[in-house]
Amino acid sequence: MSVLIVGTTALDSIKTPTRENPRLLGGSASHAAVAASFFSPVKLVGGVGEDFPKKYLALYRRHHIDLAGLQMLPGKTFHWSGEYEMNMNNRRTLATELGVIETFQPKLLEVYRDTPFVLLGNIAPALQLSVLDQMKQPKFVVADTMDLWLNIAWPDLLKLLRRVDGFVLNDSEAQLLTKEDNVFAALKKIHRLGPQYVIIKQGSHGSILSGPSGGFLCPAYPLPAVADPTGAGDTFVGGLMGYLAAAKGSIDKNIRRAMVYGSVTASFCCEGFGLNRTTKITRADIEKRVQELEKLTRF
Amino acid sequence: MSVLIVGTTALDSIKTPTRENPRLLGGSASHAAVAASFFSPVKLVGGVGEDFPKKYLALYRRHHIDLAGLQMLPGKTFHWSGEYEMNMNNRRTLATELGVIETFQPKLLEVYRDTPFVLLGNIAPALQLSVLDQMKQPKFVVADTMDLWLNIAWPDLLKLLRRVDGFVLNDSEAQLLTKEDNVFAALKKIHRLGPQYVIIKQGSHGSILSGPSGGFLCPAYPLPAVADPTGAGDTFVGGLMGYLAAAKGSIDKNIRRAMVYGSVTASFCCEGFGLNRTTKITRADIEKRVQELEKLTRF
Repeated sequence: MSVLIVGTTALDSIKTPTRENPRLLGGSASHAAVAASFFSPVKLVGGVGEDFPKKYLALYRRHHIDLAGLQMLPGKTFHWSGEYEMNMNNRRTLATELGVIETFQPKLLEVYRDTPFVLLGNIAPALQLSVLDQMKQPKFVVADTMDLWLNIAWPDLLKLLRRVDGFVLNDSEAQLLTKEDNVFAALKKIHRLGPQYVIIKQGSHGSILSGPSGGFLCPAYPLPAVADPTGAGDTFVGGLMGYLAAAKGSIDKNIRRAMVYGSVTASFCCEGFGLNRTTKITRADIEKRVQELEKLTRF
Repeated sequence: MSVLIVGTTALDSIKTPTRENPRLLGGSASHAAVAASFFSPVKLVGGVGEDFPKKYLALYRRHHIDLAGLQMLPGKTFHWSGEYEMNMNNRRTLATELGVIETFQPKLLEVYRDTPFVLLGNIAPALQLSVLDQMKQPKFVVADTMDLWLNIAWPDLLKLLRRVDGFVLNDSEAQLLTKEDNVFAALKKIHRLGPQYVIIKQGSHGSILSGPSGGFLCPAYPLPAVADPTGAGDTFVGGLMGYLAAAKGSIDKNIRRAMVYGSVTASFCCEGFGLNRTTKITRADIEKRVQELEKLTRF
Protein backbone atom coordinates (compact mmCIF):
# COMPACT_ATOMS: atom_id res chain seq x y z
CA MET A 1 0.00 0.00 0.00
CA SER A 2 1.09 3.61 -0.41
CA VAL A 3 1.91 6.40 2.02
CA LEU A 4 0.87 10.02 1.70
CA ILE A 5 3.42 12.33 3.30
CA VAL A 6 2.91 16.01 4.03
CA GLY A 7 5.58 18.21 5.58
CA THR A 8 8.15 20.83 4.69
CA THR A 9 10.18 20.66 1.49
CA ALA A 10 13.10 22.90 2.24
CA LEU A 11 16.62 23.98 1.55
CA ASP A 12 18.86 23.48 4.58
CA SER A 13 22.17 25.17 5.26
CA ILE A 14 23.90 23.13 7.91
CA LYS A 15 27.01 23.98 9.89
CA THR A 16 28.79 21.43 12.07
CA PRO A 17 32.04 21.94 13.97
CA THR A 18 33.94 20.51 11.00
CA ARG A 19 31.93 21.40 7.88
CA GLU A 20 29.47 23.74 6.25
CA ASN A 21 26.92 22.75 3.62
CA PRO A 22 24.70 25.37 1.98
CA ARG A 23 21.26 24.79 0.44
CA LEU A 24 21.01 21.02 0.68
CA LEU A 25 17.67 19.35 0.05
CA GLY A 26 15.93 19.13 3.41
CA GLY A 27 12.64 19.46 5.22
CA SER A 28 10.56 16.91 7.08
CA ALA A 29 8.68 15.69 3.98
CA SER A 30 11.88 15.24 1.93
CA HIS A 31 13.60 13.10 4.55
CA ALA A 32 10.46 11.10 5.37
CA ALA A 33 9.54 10.53 1.70
CA VAL A 34 12.99 9.25 0.71
CA ALA A 35 13.04 6.95 3.78
CA ALA A 36 9.54 5.59 3.08
CA SER A 37 10.41 5.05 -0.59
CA PHE A 38 12.67 2.10 0.29
CA PHE A 39 9.55 0.19 1.33
CA SER A 40 6.40 1.56 -0.33
CA PRO A 41 5.10 3.92 -3.02
CA VAL A 42 5.08 7.49 -1.70
CA LYS A 43 2.89 10.49 -2.52
CA LEU A 44 4.51 13.78 -1.50
CA VAL A 45 2.40 16.80 -0.49
CA GLY A 46 4.26 20.07 -0.08
CA GLY A 47 5.17 23.41 -1.61
CA VAL A 48 8.39 24.73 -3.09
CA GLY A 49 9.39 28.07 -4.59
CA GLU A 50 10.67 29.10 -7.98
CA ASP A 51 14.28 28.75 -6.77
CA PHE A 52 13.87 25.03 -6.01
CA PRO A 53 16.72 23.27 -7.87
CA LYS A 54 15.65 20.87 -10.64
CA LYS A 55 18.24 18.35 -9.46
CA TYR A 56 16.21 17.87 -6.29
CA LEU A 57 13.09 17.07 -8.29
CA ALA A 58 15.19 14.50 -10.13
CA LEU A 59 16.32 13.11 -6.77
CA TYR A 60 12.69 12.63 -5.64
CA ARG A 61 11.92 10.94 -8.97
CA ARG A 62 14.85 8.55 -8.67
CA HIS A 63 13.13 7.40 -5.47
CA HIS A 64 9.87 6.95 -7.41
CA ILE A 65 8.18 9.57 -5.25
CA ASP A 66 4.89 10.74 -6.76
CA LEU A 67 5.20 14.54 -7.10
CA ALA A 68 1.69 15.33 -8.34
CA GLY A 69 1.02 16.86 -4.89
CA LEU A 70 4.14 19.03 -4.82
CA GLN A 71 3.00 22.59 -5.55
CA MET A 72 5.34 25.01 -7.32
CA LEU A 73 4.52 28.41 -5.84
CA PRO A 74 5.63 31.95 -6.66
CA GLY A 75 8.37 33.01 -4.23
CA LYS A 76 11.24 31.34 -2.47
CA THR A 77 11.57 27.84 -1.06
CA PHE A 78 11.53 27.51 2.73
CA HIS A 79 15.14 27.89 3.91
CA TRP A 80 16.48 26.79 7.28
CA SER A 81 20.00 27.28 8.52
CA GLY A 82 21.38 25.84 11.69
CA GLU A 83 24.52 24.92 13.53
CA TYR A 84 25.45 21.84 15.58
CA GLU A 85 27.70 21.81 18.61
CA MET A 86 30.66 19.48 19.00
CA ASN A 87 28.68 16.58 20.49
CA MET A 88 26.06 16.78 17.69
CA ASN A 89 23.24 16.67 20.22
CA ASN A 90 22.53 20.38 20.56
CA ARG A 91 21.55 22.44 17.58
CA ARG A 92 20.90 26.13 17.18
CA THR A 93 18.75 27.70 14.47
CA LEU A 94 20.66 30.51 12.75
CA ALA A 95 17.90 31.62 10.38
CA THR A 96 14.46 30.56 9.17
CA GLU A 97 13.08 32.05 5.96
CA LEU A 98 9.57 30.69 5.53
CA GLY A 99 9.20 31.74 1.87
CA VAL A 100 6.33 29.95 0.14
CA ILE A 101 5.60 27.88 3.26
CA GLU A 102 4.03 30.97 4.82
CA THR A 103 1.04 30.87 2.49
CA PHE A 104 1.15 27.20 1.41
CA GLN A 105 -2.21 25.42 1.63
CA PRO A 106 -2.22 21.71 0.88
CA LYS A 107 -4.92 20.84 -1.64
CA LEU A 108 -5.14 17.12 -2.16
CA LEU A 109 -5.78 15.64 -5.59
CA GLU A 110 -8.85 13.44 -5.64
CA VAL A 111 -6.69 10.34 -6.25
CA TYR A 112 -4.64 11.13 -3.13
CA ARG A 113 -7.64 11.17 -0.78
CA ASP A 114 -7.95 7.46 -0.28
CA THR A 115 -4.27 6.73 0.43
CA PRO A 116 -4.37 4.21 3.31
CA PHE A 117 -1.28 5.40 5.24
CA VAL A 118 -0.86 9.07 6.11
CA LEU A 119 2.22 10.65 7.63
CA LEU A 120 1.61 14.18 8.85
CA GLY A 121 5.27 15.16 8.97
CA ASN A 122 6.52 18.13 10.91
CA ILE A 123 4.80 21.29 9.64
CA ALA A 124 2.24 23.66 11.22
CA PRO A 125 -0.53 21.62 12.92
CA ALA A 126 -3.16 23.65 11.01
CA LEU A 127 -1.75 22.29 7.74
CA GLN A 128 -1.61 18.75 9.17
CA LEU A 129 -5.28 19.13 10.12
CA SER A 130 -6.14 20.46 6.68
CA VAL A 131 -4.63 17.35 5.05
CA LEU A 132 -6.48 15.10 7.46
CA ASP A 133 -9.76 16.90 6.65
CA GLN A 134 -9.32 15.96 3.01
CA MET A 135 -8.62 12.26 3.57
CA LYS A 136 -11.29 9.54 3.23
CA GLN A 137 -11.01 7.07 6.13
CA PRO A 138 -7.29 6.38 6.08
CA LYS A 139 -6.16 3.09 7.65
CA PHE A 140 -3.39 4.59 9.83
CA VAL A 141 -2.45 8.20 10.49
CA VAL A 142 0.73 9.26 12.29
CA ALA A 143 1.73 12.83 13.15
CA ASP A 144 5.18 14.17 13.95
CA THR A 145 5.84 17.62 15.40
CA MET A 146 8.49 19.95 16.86
CA ASP A 147 8.91 22.19 19.90
CA LEU A 148 7.94 25.30 17.89
CA TRP A 149 4.33 24.09 17.48
CA LEU A 150 4.07 23.17 21.15
CA ASN A 151 4.93 26.79 21.87
CA ILE A 152 2.94 28.67 19.23
CA ALA A 153 0.17 26.35 17.99
CA TRP A 154 -0.90 24.43 21.07
CA PRO A 155 -4.70 24.49 20.45
CA ASP A 156 -4.28 23.18 16.87
CA LEU A 157 -1.88 20.49 18.05
CA LEU A 158 -4.36 19.36 20.73
CA LYS A 159 -7.09 19.15 18.09
CA LEU A 160 -4.78 17.11 15.87
CA LEU A 161 -3.85 14.68 18.66
CA ARG A 162 -7.48 13.71 19.13
CA ARG A 163 -7.63 12.63 15.47
CA VAL A 164 -4.44 10.63 14.84
CA ASP A 165 -3.63 6.98 15.52
CA GLY A 166 0.01 7.61 16.29
CA PHE A 167 2.11 10.50 17.53
CA VAL A 168 5.88 10.81 17.34
CA LEU A 169 7.97 13.37 19.23
CA ASN A 170 11.37 13.58 20.85
CA ASP A 171 12.15 13.43 24.56
CA SER A 172 12.59 17.17 25.10
CA GLU A 173 9.30 17.83 23.27
CA ALA A 174 7.60 15.18 25.42
CA GLN A 175 8.91 16.94 28.51
CA LEU A 176 7.71 20.31 27.21
CA LEU A 177 4.30 18.83 26.43
CA THR A 178 3.71 16.93 29.68
CA LYS A 179 5.96 18.70 32.23
CA GLU A 180 7.26 15.20 33.04
CA ASP A 181 11.02 14.52 33.25
CA ASN A 182 10.42 10.79 33.16
CA VAL A 183 9.79 9.49 29.67
CA PHE A 184 7.53 6.61 30.76
CA ALA A 185 5.38 8.94 32.85
CA ALA A 186 5.24 11.29 29.84
CA LEU A 187 4.06 8.47 27.54
CA LYS A 188 1.06 7.81 29.78
CA LYS A 189 0.07 11.48 29.80
CA ILE A 190 0.32 11.75 26.00
CA HIS A 191 -2.07 8.80 25.51
CA ARG A 192 -4.70 10.80 27.38
CA LEU A 193 -4.51 13.44 24.63
CA GLY A 194 -5.71 10.92 22.06
CA PRO A 195 -3.18 8.76 20.21
CA GLN A 196 -3.24 4.99 20.66
CA TYR A 197 0.41 4.73 19.66
CA VAL A 198 2.95 7.15 21.13
CA ILE A 199 6.62 7.05 20.18
CA ILE A 200 9.25 9.11 21.96
CA LYS A 201 12.51 9.50 20.07
CA GLN A 202 15.74 9.68 22.06
CA GLY A 203 18.32 10.29 19.33
CA SER A 204 21.33 7.99 19.68
CA HIS A 205 19.56 6.19 22.55
CA GLY A 206 16.81 4.86 20.27
CA SER A 207 13.08 5.30 20.73
CA ILE A 208 10.26 4.06 22.93
CA LEU A 209 6.81 2.90 21.85
CA SER A 210 3.74 2.76 24.01
CA GLY A 211 0.88 1.03 22.22
CA PRO A 212 -2.34 -0.90 22.87
CA SER A 213 -0.50 -4.20 23.34
CA GLY A 214 2.40 -2.85 25.39
CA GLY A 215 5.70 -1.12 24.90
CA PHE A 216 8.80 -1.53 22.81
CA LEU A 217 12.32 -0.27 23.44
CA CYS A 218 13.68 0.31 19.94
CA PRO A 219 17.46 0.46 19.70
CA ALA A 220 19.44 2.95 17.62
CA TYR A 221 21.99 1.45 15.27
CA PRO A 222 25.46 2.11 16.77
CA LEU A 223 27.38 4.76 14.81
CA PRO A 224 31.01 5.47 15.68
CA ALA A 225 30.71 8.85 13.95
CA VAL A 226 27.84 11.19 13.10
CA ALA A 227 28.23 13.66 10.23
CA ASP A 228 24.87 15.47 10.51
CA PRO A 229 21.75 14.36 12.43
CA THR A 230 19.42 16.80 10.61
CA GLY A 231 16.37 14.92 9.37
CA ALA A 232 17.09 11.74 11.34
CA GLY A 233 13.76 11.97 13.17
CA ASP A 234 11.85 12.53 9.89
CA THR A 235 13.76 9.64 8.32
CA PHE A 236 12.84 7.43 11.28
CA VAL A 237 9.12 8.08 10.99
CA GLY A 238 9.23 7.94 7.18
CA GLY A 239 10.93 4.53 7.25
CA LEU A 240 8.46 3.36 9.89
CA MET A 241 5.42 4.36 7.82
CA GLY A 242 6.90 2.97 4.60
CA TYR A 243 7.56 -0.35 6.28
CA LEU A 244 4.08 -0.48 7.84
CA ALA A 245 2.39 0.26 4.51
CA ALA A 246 4.24 -2.66 2.90
CA ALA A 247 3.80 -5.17 5.74
CA LYS A 248 1.08 -7.80 5.86
CA GLY A 249 -1.00 -8.15 9.01
CA SER A 250 -2.09 -5.74 11.72
CA ILE A 251 -0.38 -2.50 12.69
CA ASP A 252 0.11 -3.87 16.17
CA LYS A 253 1.92 -6.94 14.86
CA ASN A 254 4.23 -4.93 12.61
CA ILE A 255 4.93 -1.65 14.38
CA ARG A 256 7.92 -2.84 16.44
CA ARG A 257 9.75 -4.09 13.37
CA ALA A 258 8.68 -0.94 11.52
CA MET A 259 10.40 1.14 14.21
CA VAL A 260 13.59 -0.89 13.79
CA TYR A 261 13.53 -0.29 10.02
CA GLY A 262 12.91 3.41 10.62
CA SER A 263 15.74 3.52 13.14
CA VAL A 264 18.19 1.84 10.76
CA THR A 265 17.22 4.11 7.87
CA ALA A 266 17.80 7.09 10.19
CA SER A 267 21.27 5.76 11.02
CA PHE A 268 22.25 6.19 7.36
CA CYS A 269 20.79 9.72 7.37
CA CYS A 270 23.18 10.66 10.21
CA GLU A 271 26.20 9.51 8.25
CA GLY A 272 26.01 12.22 5.61
CA PHE A 273 24.95 15.84 5.27
CA GLY A 274 21.28 16.35 4.37
CA LEU A 275 20.13 13.44 2.24
CA ASN A 276 23.61 12.73 0.82
CA ARG A 277 23.98 9.32 2.43
CA THR A 278 20.33 8.23 2.57
CA THR A 279 19.96 8.62 -1.19
CA LYS A 280 22.97 6.38 -1.84
CA ILE A 281 21.83 3.26 0.02
CA THR A 282 19.75 0.28 -1.08
CA ARG A 283 17.15 -1.84 0.65
CA ALA A 284 19.89 -4.48 1.06
CA ASP A 285 22.02 -2.04 3.09
CA ILE A 286 19.04 -1.50 5.39
CA GLU A 287 18.41 -5.24 5.75
CA LYS A 288 22.05 -5.81 6.71
CA ARG A 289 21.90 -3.29 9.57
CA VAL A 290 18.56 -4.66 10.77
CA GLN A 291 20.19 -8.08 11.03
CA GLU A 292 23.11 -6.56 12.92
CA LEU A 293 20.69 -4.88 15.33
CA GLU A 294 19.00 -8.22 15.89
CA LYS A 295 22.36 -9.67 16.94
CA LEU A 296 23.21 -6.63 19.05
CA THR A 297 20.00 -6.85 21.08
CA ARG A 298 19.54 -10.62 21.48
CA PHE A 299 20.11 -12.07 24.94
CA MET B 1 30.83 -20.48 41.92
CA SER B 2 31.40 -17.55 44.25
CA VAL B 3 32.26 -13.89 43.75
CA LEU B 4 34.75 -11.89 45.74
CA ILE B 5 33.77 -8.23 45.92
CA VAL B 6 35.97 -5.40 47.14
CA GLY B 7 34.81 -1.80 47.32
CA THR B 8 33.60 0.81 49.74
CA THR B 9 31.32 -0.05 52.65
CA ALA B 10 29.85 3.27 53.57
CA LEU B 11 27.14 5.28 55.19
CA ASP B 12 25.34 7.50 52.68
CA SER B 13 23.25 10.57 53.41
CA ILE B 14 21.17 11.22 50.35
CA LYS B 15 19.07 14.27 49.53
CA THR B 16 16.66 14.36 46.63
CA PRO B 17 14.26 17.16 45.71
CA THR B 18 11.54 15.44 47.73
CA ARG B 19 13.29 13.56 50.57
CA GLU B 20 16.32 13.32 52.83
CA ASN B 21 17.76 10.09 54.20
CA PRO B 22 20.69 10.16 56.62
CA ARG B 23 23.26 7.40 57.18
CA LEU B 24 21.81 4.66 55.00
CA LEU B 25 23.94 1.61 54.22
CA GLY B 26 25.81 2.40 51.01
CA GLY B 27 29.11 2.09 49.23
CA SER B 28 30.04 0.27 46.05
CA ALA B 29 30.73 -3.06 47.78
CA SER B 30 27.44 -3.02 49.72
CA HIS B 31 25.30 -2.43 46.62
CA ALA B 32 27.28 -4.89 44.49
CA ALA B 33 27.34 -7.61 47.16
CA VAL B 34 23.60 -7.50 47.81
CA ALA B 35 22.93 -7.58 44.05
CA ALA B 36 25.29 -10.51 43.46
CA SER B 37 23.80 -12.40 46.40
CA PHE B 38 20.59 -13.08 44.45
CA PHE B 39 22.60 -15.36 42.15
CA SER B 40 25.80 -16.62 43.85
CA PRO B 41 27.65 -16.87 47.16
CA VAL B 42 29.46 -13.58 47.89
CA LYS B 43 32.65 -12.81 49.84
CA LEU B 44 32.83 -9.16 50.89
CA VAL B 45 36.19 -7.40 51.31
CA GLY B 46 36.07 -3.97 52.89
CA GLY B 47 36.58 -1.90 56.01
CA VAL B 48 34.12 -0.27 58.39
CA GLY B 49 34.57 1.86 61.52
CA GLU B 50 33.43 1.44 65.08
CA ASP B 51 30.26 3.41 64.37
CA PHE B 52 29.02 0.93 61.76
CA PRO B 53 25.47 -0.03 62.80
CA LYS B 54 24.98 -3.68 63.76
CA LYS B 55 21.72 -3.75 61.81
CA TYR B 56 23.71 -3.37 58.61
CA LEU B 57 25.85 -6.40 59.48
CA ALA B 58 22.60 -8.26 60.00
CA LEU B 59 21.41 -7.05 56.59
CA TYR B 60 24.54 -8.44 54.90
CA ARG B 61 24.01 -11.74 56.75
CA ARG B 62 20.40 -12.01 55.64
CA HIS B 63 21.82 -11.98 52.10
CA HIS B 64 24.23 -14.79 53.07
CA ILE B 65 27.18 -12.51 52.37
CA ASP B 66 30.43 -13.91 53.81
CA LEU B 67 31.81 -11.18 56.10
CA ALA B 68 35.13 -12.82 57.10
CA GLY B 69 36.87 -10.24 54.88
CA LEU B 70 35.07 -7.21 56.33
CA GLN B 71 37.59 -5.52 58.65
CA MET B 72 36.39 -3.62 61.70
CA LEU B 73 38.83 -0.73 62.08
CA PRO B 74 39.35 1.93 64.76
CA GLY B 75 37.75 5.17 63.61
CA LYS B 76 34.67 6.17 61.65
CA THR B 77 32.97 4.49 58.69
CA PHE B 78 33.36 6.18 55.30
CA HIS B 79 30.52 8.70 55.01
CA TRP B 80 29.28 10.23 51.77
CA SER B 81 26.56 12.80 51.45
CA GLY B 82 25.12 14.02 48.20
CA GLU B 83 22.18 15.71 46.60
CA TYR B 84 20.24 14.95 43.42
CA GLU B 85 18.64 17.51 41.15
CA MET B 86 15.03 17.32 40.00
CA ASN B 87 15.66 15.09 36.97
CA MET B 88 17.70 12.63 39.11
CA ASN B 89 20.48 12.58 36.53
CA ASN B 90 22.81 15.14 38.05
CA ARG B 91 24.21 14.64 41.50
CA ARG B 92 26.39 16.84 43.65
CA THR B 93 28.64 15.60 46.46
CA LEU B 94 27.99 17.62 49.62
CA ALA B 95 30.62 15.98 51.82
CA THR B 96 33.00 13.04 51.84
CA GLU B 97 34.48 11.86 55.14
CA LEU B 98 36.91 9.06 54.32
CA GLY B 99 37.23 7.76 57.89
CA VAL B 100 38.73 4.27 58.06
CA ILE B 101 38.86 4.05 54.25
CA GLU B 102 41.85 6.42 54.32
CA THR B 103 44.14 3.78 55.83
CA PHE B 104 42.24 0.61 54.87
CA GLN B 105 44.44 -2.09 53.32
CA PRO B 106 42.66 -5.18 52.02
CA LYS B 107 44.32 -8.34 53.36
CA LEU B 108 42.75 -11.40 51.87
CA LEU B 109 42.18 -14.54 53.92
CA GLU B 110 43.91 -17.57 52.42
CA VAL B 111 40.53 -19.15 51.62
CA TYR B 112 39.48 -16.05 49.67
CA ARG B 113 42.45 -16.16 47.28
CA ASP B 114 41.12 -18.76 44.90
CA THR B 115 37.65 -17.26 44.42
CA PRO B 116 36.99 -17.65 40.68
CA PHE B 117 35.04 -14.40 40.07
CA VAL B 118 36.46 -11.10 41.28
CA LEU B 119 34.65 -7.78 41.23
CA LEU B 120 36.94 -4.85 41.94
CA GLY B 121 34.16 -2.43 42.83
CA ASN B 122 34.65 1.31 42.88
CA ILE B 123 37.44 2.19 45.35
CA ALA B 124 40.99 3.57 44.89
CA PRO B 125 42.73 1.70 42.01
CA ALA B 126 45.71 1.01 44.32
CA LEU B 127 43.41 -1.02 46.58
CA GLN B 128 41.87 -2.80 43.56
CA LEU B 129 45.43 -3.70 42.46
CA SER B 130 46.32 -4.87 45.95
CA VAL B 131 43.37 -7.30 45.94
CA LEU B 132 44.31 -8.54 42.48
CA ASP B 133 47.91 -9.13 43.64
CA GLN B 134 46.62 -11.47 46.33
CA MET B 135 44.42 -13.59 44.04
CA LYS B 136 45.51 -16.93 42.57
CA GLN B 137 44.51 -17.12 38.89
CA PRO B 138 40.90 -15.98 39.05
CA LYS B 139 38.65 -17.03 36.18
CA PHE B 140 37.17 -13.59 35.48
CA VAL B 141 38.05 -10.18 36.90
CA VAL B 142 35.97 -7.05 36.36
CA ALA B 143 36.80 -3.56 37.61
CA ASP B 144 34.48 -0.63 38.09
CA THR B 145 35.65 2.94 38.72
CA MET B 146 34.55 6.57 39.05
CA ASP B 147 35.62 9.96 37.68
CA LEU B 148 37.58 10.76 40.85
CA TRP B 149 40.16 8.05 40.08
CA LEU B 150 40.47 9.14 36.47
CA ASN B 151 41.45 12.53 37.83
CA ILE B 152 43.70 11.66 40.77
CA ALA B 153 44.95 8.08 40.26
CA TRP B 154 45.43 7.78 36.52
CA PRO B 155 48.73 5.77 36.57
CA ASP B 156 47.28 3.18 38.98
CA LEU B 157 44.12 2.90 36.91
CA LEU B 158 46.14 2.34 33.72
CA LYS B 159 48.10 -0.39 35.49
CA LEU B 160 44.85 -1.98 36.63
CA LEU B 161 43.29 -1.90 33.15
CA ARG B 162 46.12 -4.01 31.75
CA ARG B 163 45.28 -6.75 34.27
CA VAL B 164 41.48 -7.08 34.21
CA ASP B 165 39.21 -9.03 31.87
CA GLY B 166 36.38 -6.54 32.04
CA PHE B 167 36.00 -2.83 32.76
CA VAL B 168 32.78 -1.01 33.58
CA LEU B 169 32.35 2.76 33.56
CA ASN B 170 29.65 5.29 32.78
CA ASP B 171 29.40 7.45 29.66
CA SER B 172 30.77 10.63 31.17
CA GLU B 173 33.72 8.70 32.62
CA ALA B 174 34.33 7.10 29.21
CA GLN B 175 34.37 10.57 27.68
CA LEU B 176 36.79 11.82 30.33
CA LEU B 177 39.04 8.80 29.79
CA THR B 178 39.12 8.81 25.98
CA LYS B 179 38.26 12.44 25.04
CA GLU B 180 35.65 10.90 22.72
CA ASP B 181 32.06 12.20 22.69
CA ASN B 182 30.88 9.16 20.77
CA VAL B 183 30.39 6.12 22.98
CA PHE B 184 31.24 3.56 20.25
CA ALA B 185 34.47 5.36 19.41
CA ALA B 186 35.24 5.47 23.15
CA LEU B 187 34.71 1.69 23.48
CA LYS B 188 37.36 1.03 20.84
CA LYS B 189 39.88 3.24 22.58
CA ILE B 190 39.29 1.61 25.96
CA HIS B 191 39.98 -1.86 24.56
CA ARG B 192 43.46 -0.62 23.64
CA LEU B 193 44.12 -0.03 27.35
CA GLY B 194 43.71 -3.73 28.09
CA PRO B 195 40.24 -5.11 28.88
CA GLN B 196 38.64 -7.66 26.54
CA TYR B 197 35.18 -6.71 27.75
CA VAL B 198 34.23 -3.05 28.09
CA ILE B 199 30.82 -1.96 29.33
CA ILE B 200 29.66 1.65 29.24
CA LYS B 201 26.69 2.43 31.47
CA GLN B 202 24.19 5.05 30.31
CA GLY B 203 21.83 5.26 33.27
CA SER B 204 18.18 5.09 32.22
CA HIS B 205 19.32 4.46 28.62
CA GLY B 206 20.84 1.08 29.50
CA SER B 207 24.40 -0.04 28.83
CA ILE B 208 26.61 -1.09 25.95
CA LEU B 209 29.00 -4.03 25.81
CA SER B 210 31.93 -4.41 23.49
CA GLY B 211 33.45 -7.88 23.74
CA PRO B 212 35.50 -10.40 21.78
CA SER B 213 32.48 -11.73 19.91
CA GLY B 214 30.78 -8.41 19.26
CA GLY B 215 28.59 -5.92 21.01
CA PHE B 216 25.38 -5.88 22.98
CA LEU B 217 22.91 -3.06 23.57
CA CYS B 218 21.50 -3.80 27.02
CA PRO B 219 18.19 -2.12 27.81
CA ALA B 220 17.29 -0.50 31.10
CA TYR B 221 14.04 -1.64 32.68
CA PRO B 222 11.47 1.16 32.21
CA LEU B 223 10.73 2.94 35.49
CA PRO B 224 7.95 5.54 35.60
CA ALA B 225 9.52 7.00 38.77
CA VAL B 226 12.98 6.97 40.32
CA ALA B 227 13.37 7.45 44.07
CA ASP B 228 17.19 7.42 44.31
CA PRO B 229 19.69 6.20 41.71
CA THR B 230 22.63 6.01 44.18
CA GLY B 231 24.31 2.62 43.86
CA ALA B 232 22.50 1.63 40.65
CA GLY B 233 25.79 1.25 38.77
CA ASP B 234 27.28 -0.89 41.56
CA THR B 235 24.10 -2.95 41.67
CA PHE B 236 24.30 -3.46 37.90
CA VAL B 237 27.84 -4.81 37.97
CA GLY B 238 27.18 -6.83 41.15
CA GLY B 239 24.17 -8.52 39.57
CA LEU B 240 26.15 -9.11 36.39
CA MET B 241 29.01 -10.83 38.25
CA GLY B 242 26.66 -12.82 40.47
CA TYR B 243 24.79 -14.10 37.42
CA LEU B 244 28.02 -14.95 35.56
CA ALA B 245 29.40 -16.88 38.54
CA ALA B 246 26.25 -19.00 38.65
CA ALA B 247 25.86 -19.57 34.91
CA LYS B 248 27.10 -22.66 33.08
CA GLY B 249 29.22 -22.22 29.95
CA SER B 250 31.61 -19.54 28.75
CA ILE B 251 31.69 -15.91 29.83
CA ASP B 252 31.10 -14.91 26.24
CA LYS B 253 27.96 -17.01 26.01
CA ASN B 254 26.52 -15.66 29.27
CA ILE B 255 27.60 -12.04 29.55
CA ARG B 256 24.71 -10.51 27.57
CA ARG B 257 22.12 -12.17 29.78
CA ALA B 258 24.23 -11.32 32.82
CA MET B 259 24.01 -7.64 31.85
CA VAL B 260 20.22 -7.89 31.60
CA TYR B 261 20.05 -9.43 35.09
CA GLY B 262 22.35 -6.69 36.38
CA SER B 263 20.23 -4.05 34.70
CA VAL B 264 16.99 -5.40 36.18
CA THR B 265 18.50 -5.67 39.67
CA ALA B 266 19.63 -2.03 39.32
CA SER B 267 16.07 -1.01 38.40
CA PHE B 268 14.92 -2.14 41.85
CA CYS B 269 17.79 -0.22 43.45
CA CYS B 270 16.49 3.02 41.87
CA GLU B 271 13.03 2.52 43.34
CA GLY B 272 14.10 3.03 46.95
CA PHE B 273 16.60 5.04 48.95
CA GLY B 274 19.95 3.30 49.47
CA LEU B 275 19.38 -0.45 49.65
CA ASN B 276 15.81 -0.13 50.95
CA ARG B 277 14.15 -1.61 47.88
CA THR B 278 16.91 -3.98 46.71
CA THR B 279 16.90 -5.80 50.03
CA LYS B 280 13.15 -6.42 49.84
CA ILE B 281 13.00 -8.24 46.51
CA THR B 282 13.35 -11.91 45.63
CA ARG B 283 14.90 -13.75 42.72
CA ALA B 284 11.37 -14.24 41.39
CA ASP B 285 10.86 -10.45 41.21
CA ILE B 286 14.03 -10.22 39.14
CA GLU B 287 12.95 -13.04 36.79
CA LYS B 288 9.61 -11.32 36.21
CA ARG B 289 11.25 -8.09 35.07
CA VAL B 290 13.75 -9.97 32.88
CA GLN B 291 10.80 -11.61 31.12
CA GLU B 292 9.15 -8.21 30.70
CA LEU B 293 12.37 -6.83 29.20
CA GLU B 294 12.42 -9.74 26.76
CA LYS B 295 8.95 -8.76 25.59
CA LEU B 296 9.84 -5.06 25.47
CA THR B 297 12.85 -5.63 23.20
CA ARG B 298 11.61 -8.38 20.88
CA PHE B 299 10.93 -7.40 17.25
